[in-house]
Amino acid sequence: MKIAIDVMGGDHAPGEIIRGCLLAATHTDAELILVGDREVISAQIDQGGLYPHPEKIHIVHAQDVIDNEDSPIQAVRGKPDSSMVKAIDLVRSGDADAALSAGNTGALMAAGLLRLGRIQGVERPAIVSVYPLVGQKKAFSLLVDAGANAECKPTNLIGFAHMGSMYMQSAFGVERPTVGLINIGTEEGKGTAQLKETYQLLKQSGLNFIGNVEGRDIPTGAADVLVCDGFTGNVVLKLTEGLAWSLLKNIRKRFTEGLTAKLGAAMLAGKLRELKKEFDYSTYGGAPILGIDGLVIKMHGSSNAIAVENAIILANVAAAAGLTARIRCAMEMAAGERGECKSDE
Amino acid sequence: MKIAIDVMGGDHAPGEIIRGCLLAATHTDAELILVGDREVISAQIDQGGLYPHPEKIHIVHAQDVIDNEDSPIQAVRGKPDSSMVKAIDLVRSGDADAALSAGNTGALMAAGLLRLGRIQGVERPAIVSVYPLVGQKKAFSLLVDAGANAECKPTNLIGFAHMGSMYMQSAFGVERPTVGLINIGTEEGKGTAQLKETYQLLKQSGLNFIGNVEGRDIPTGAADVLVCDGFTGNVVLKLTEGLAWSLLKNIRKRFTEGLTAKLGAAMLAGKLRELKKEFDYSTYGGAPILGIDGLVIKMHGSSNAIAVENAIILANVAAAAGLTARIRCAMEMAAGERGECKSDE
Repeated sequence: MKIAIDVMGGDHAPGEIIRGCLLAATHTDAELILVGDREVISAQIDQGGLYPHPEKIHIVHAQDVIDNEDSPIQAVRGKPDSSMVKAIDLVRSGDADAALSAGNTGALMAAGLLRLGRIQGVERPAIVSVYPLVGQKKAFSLLVDAGANAECKPTNLIGFAHMGSMYMQSAFGVERPTVGLINIGTEEGKGTAQLKETYQLLKQSGLNFIGNVEGRDIPTGAADVLVCDGFTGNVVLKLTEGLAWSLLKNIRKRFTEGLTAKLGAAMLAGKLRELKKEFDYSTYGGAPILGIDGLVIKMHGSSNAIAVENAIILANVAAAAGLTARIRCAMEMAAGERGECKSDE
Repeated sequence: MKIAIDVMGGDHAPGEIIRGCLLAATHTDAELILVGDREVISAQIDQGGLYPHPEKIHIVHAQDVIDNEDSPIQAVRGKPDSSMVKAIDLVRSGDADAALSAGNTGALMAAGLLRLGRIQGVERPAIVSVYPLVGQKKAFSLLVDAGANAECKPTNLIGFAHMGSMYMQSAFGVERPTVGLINIGTEEGKGTAQLKETYQLLKQSGLNFIGNVEGRDIPTGAADVLVCDGFTGNVVLKLTEGLAWSLLKNIRKRFTEGLTAKLGAAMLAGKLRELKKEFDYSTYGGAPILGIDGLVIKMHGSSNAIAVENAIILANVAAAAGLTARIRCAMEMAAGERGECKSDE
């Protein structure tokens, strides 16, 4: 597999992005195409002295960068020589199997749509993110949409459910993943008019729909795939991150008050570190934008080298599983145009 | 103050509700009117043998009960002799200063609207709930709406902001509370079309508006009053409860794995209990329905005696502070009909 990485996008670009690529080169068999300022990339690679697999690292020069302040569509149209657009174009030309970026989310979505197009039957592409679980049988649920579409129609949400299920199946090997609808009560007939309609459509979707999932059941892993609009998804993900960190920080603080507590804290330090790690987004790396006709993965804006490495590993797995073809197939199934998707297509 | 309590509503009614009333009788100067089946109430009071302040306890018989399955408006119209409606009617007749119930939320809202009416200028009454914070300078933020109105117009949200601010000021003594809008980015111009409009209206509202608050900043106490629609508020509250409990449960579990950890856990047990308590909704008791022309307080459906006691204490404070009159005044201020609200009205 060949994976194109926009090394100029993200809060810690290009340093951490490049470091992440070099780490990934030692842990995957993928060839990596680093897209960005050639001089900056070469200088960092030479300086680091860490260059264990030169045959796996390629550089494609891009002289422009899309900023977070840029307006998405204008940026994609006005900056064809930006690292983000060039990384996407490598997928378009067949020179890469996937494109990754930690830059402007809106611009990445726009670049994907404008340069790669949309899979037939997809009304709205969606970002699918991992929702980390602790102390549950499974390590995570998938949340779709995680922030690309603040407002959604019921048919959009149905598309998210199909794409999320197929992603869970092809990238993580879960057969017939359970699908839940985030809502304000478990009973049928709860929530807004839109969600009531979505509930009915999900019942008829052929997916493994298990009903509504309330906020309090999200952390228990109530469903493999959690369906919601991007507004709700964004609030759920960020609240979880904020609350987990604030709680763990507070626990550490309390555990160091007083001598007895200090003794206990020393003993338990390892356990706390372990727990903190489970909430670390960097364990999961990236979130694919499903529905674009080509594999595009959004990395967290604040990605460090570990997060980038993990995103590359994820991209490699998803590309090898033929995720885009399988999403295409899932949408044909949803439209009643075919009966099933074989795992070898 | 005289406080009417629907003792027949809630998951643990009537036992825990009555117990909570008896506890409250020893800790407040309020007179309590227990509304429900007279025989059941008398029997429990006699059986308990705990009846320290008989002069503060009154019973009003109600032969009917509104269930959680009842359709709100039909229940209120069809069951005028229910404990819930009778408790509200005591406020209407001036025989009580506040009515409390842990029963059917929709029915309580309907009973309030049908029997007490709406304060002028209020488009939609809203439930205002305490959002518990840990390790922050303040103990809680207020969240409004906490679930009464799944879908909201911008003008509804502005009303919530005015009512929530006034509640924070009169019940908790916070002068010029900060107001934040829950949204998916901090910058102006983020979120749905409705939220963009709400942002502009809040800027012109005269309230102490500090801008958008993202999910990750909710647990840090970013604003005294958090404004959102009831769908978002419900998801935020329930997710917080679910995640906090799941995290604390997991920490306890990990701390008892292995001998060293067990030693540490024993030392730290007190700290963990302390933290768990801060997330215990029962510390805060009840959530007023703001905008109804009379003080109506919704208690959590699963309220135990402690929660009921705390809700009664809250009702006593809010009634003594003249909350309803002050909300009326806040709405007149919002409409530009008066300049300020004096604390003695």
